[in-house]
Amino acid sequence: MIIISLIGYTAAFCSTFALLPQVIKVWKTKETDQLSAGTFTMMFAGAILWLLYGLLREDIIIMLANGVALIFIGFISYIKLIYNKSS
Amino acid sequence: MIIISLIGYTAAFCSTFALLPQVIKVWKTKETDQLSAGTFTMMFAGAILWLLYGLLREDIIIMLANGVALIFIGFISYIKLIYNKSS
Repeated sequence: MIIISLIGYTAAFCSTFALLPQVIKVWKTKETDQLSAGTFTMMFAGAILWLLYGLLREDIIIMLANGVALIFIGFISYIKLIYNKSS
Repeated sequence: MIIISLIGYTAAFCSTFALLPQVIKVWKTKETDQLSAGTFTMMFAGAILWLLYGLLREDIIIMLANGVALIFIGFISYIKLIYNKSS
């Protein structure tokens, strides 16, 4: 069970903080027109639903992963909305 | 339990197919230099580990979601490697 939790936490760490380099890149350049608006809309909806799923299944890994991801997705979407040239 | 599964499947659908609009955009434009290489490397590692986690916890939703996501992440990473101007 420890091995499974360890894999879960590493998976959660990778997929959660995967968006951090993109957040930094977007923060620095404010260039977002190559990023798909559809992708970030669906990511946002997905993260909210995963959060709910983790809550209902009492799975702290899924909850934590998607809570943090939601902040990153929200930031990128906000910058895209403000600085976007094309969707 | 049906409600939880339904939320899980909808979450899986959103986060799995979230990358599809980005795949289509990248396929059409071949423009990937605004996409972070670090993000897609971590997404790739994350999807493989989630797949393993889902397998070990016998969670078909997590397995399916990350199996399909892996294909999309792989495609975008491949195009980025081929056509990339900056990382």
